[in-house]
Amino acid sequence: MPHSTTPHTYRQYDKELEDIRNRVLAMGGLVERQIAEAVDALVNGDVEKAEEVISKDYRVNAMDVSIDEECTQILARRQPTAGDLRLVMAVIKTVADLERIGDGAERIGRTTIRLSERERPANTFGLIRSLSNHALGMLRDSLDTFARMDPEAALSVAAQDTQVDARYESILRQLITYMMEDPRNISWAVELIWVARALERIGDHACNICEYVIYLVKGKDVRHTSLESMEQIVHEE
Amino acid sequence: MPHSTTPHTYRQYDKELEDIRNRVLAMGGLVERQIAEAVDALVNGDVEKAEEVISKDYRVNAMDVSIDEECTQILARRQPTAGDLRLVMAVIKTVADLERIGDGAERIGRTTIRLSERERPANTFGLIRSLSNHALGMLRDSLDTFARMDPEAALSVAAQDTQVDARYESILRQLITYMMEDPRNISWAVELIWVARALERIGDHACNICEYVIYLVKGKDVRHTSLESMEQIVHEE
Repeated sequence: MPHSTTPHTYRQYDKELEDIRNRVLAMGGLVERQIAEAVDALVNGDVEKAEEVISKDYRVNAMDVSIDEECTQILARRQPTAGDLRLVMAVIKTVADLERIGDGAERIGRTTIRLSERERPANTFGLIRSLSNHALGMLRDSLDTFARMDPEAALSVAAQDTQVDARYESILRQLITYMMEDPRNISWAVELIWVARALERIGDHACNICEYVIYLVKGKDVRHTSLESMEQIVHEE
Repeated sequence: MPHSTTPHTYRQYDKELEDIRNRVLAMGGLVERQIAEAVDALVNGDVEKAEEVISKDYRVNAMDVSIDEECTQILARRQPTAGDLRLVMAVIKTVADLERIGDGAERIGRTTIRLSERERPANTFGLIRSLSNHALGMLRDSLDTFARMDPEAALSVAAQDTQVDARYESILRQLITYMMEDPRNISWAVELIWVARALERIGDHACNICEYVIYLVKGKDVRHTSLESMEQIVHEE
């Protein structure tokens, strides 16, 4: 709460904080759809859909800039402290992570266009779709912990990242095997390495969001610490 | 300036703002050395040096957390507005970019250890060193524009990114050629693709820093805009 408020400005300020939270969730939903559609387009060789994803990236960027701007205005006008300040900081950071996931969707869209004339390696595409589903599940869950400000749930979402990493590693191994089998596979396989990497990074960004949730609720910055020490901090009274 | 200050607290506040600026520059210097040493270790197959780089990444992370913490405290206690607030925001964002560059150094260190038993592809290593020099030059220049708060210089640093990208693309093409020539080249070439990518990303982070400098001085968020519109904003009175 700001240090000097009338009931009116207090309600207005509360609405502003609520608003940035809601806008982060909306941005998260948009980014999630962008990735899901980009992967659909890739798997189905759907160039039109890929172009649509690319053309919609500006919406993600616009949300990045405008939520950031709203946060700066809240800092300037409301001068939040304690939990309110941590919320604003967490929003600023979450938006940066979401924007990077959005870049990944655009990138997958461009890859789809480049690969559209090629034969579709069904096997790898199946693995890519599964990696995407897992990573997007993590993203959704991390935003859900953000909406509910639930550090306990944030812990268990962060713990899922090893599974996303394992799926990514297995795609990487498969792609390298294809490359070794036939040099004609090399150029498309390298393209798919980038796709797999973009999807694997979603898990990392979801972990970051979980860390901000713990920071927001517990007041401790748990970035660059192990899952074990995150657990300890969450369970501290 | 905060809204109510005595000369004493004003001087103290000024010192705090000066301090976060200096700490960003120190962190930039550390990250730059980490990348330079990681690339040296890679090119010379120096496992010991690579291990040193990996072991020093915690210092980058510690600076990330502590500068962020100092910024949050300034926001809470000083309630900065206008240019001071933009400085704090720019510092928060710059630190996040520097931390990511630092991760790249650690990654290159790990690659060096994995590749240490291999024959060294001198040709590619020459290109990688040249990419590294260019990207680090951009990083240094971007931090310099930050130190001098010089949006004009920030523009010309950002314009260099196309050269870094071109060098990266040529490494990528060379590595793909090696892979096609001999499947035994594939696994190390894939490792070097990641190295090249980490170095290319330094150019992107340097561009981001330049954008924050323009934001800081001009008060306009120029992310996700073209170089042309950045120029327009810098030259507006």
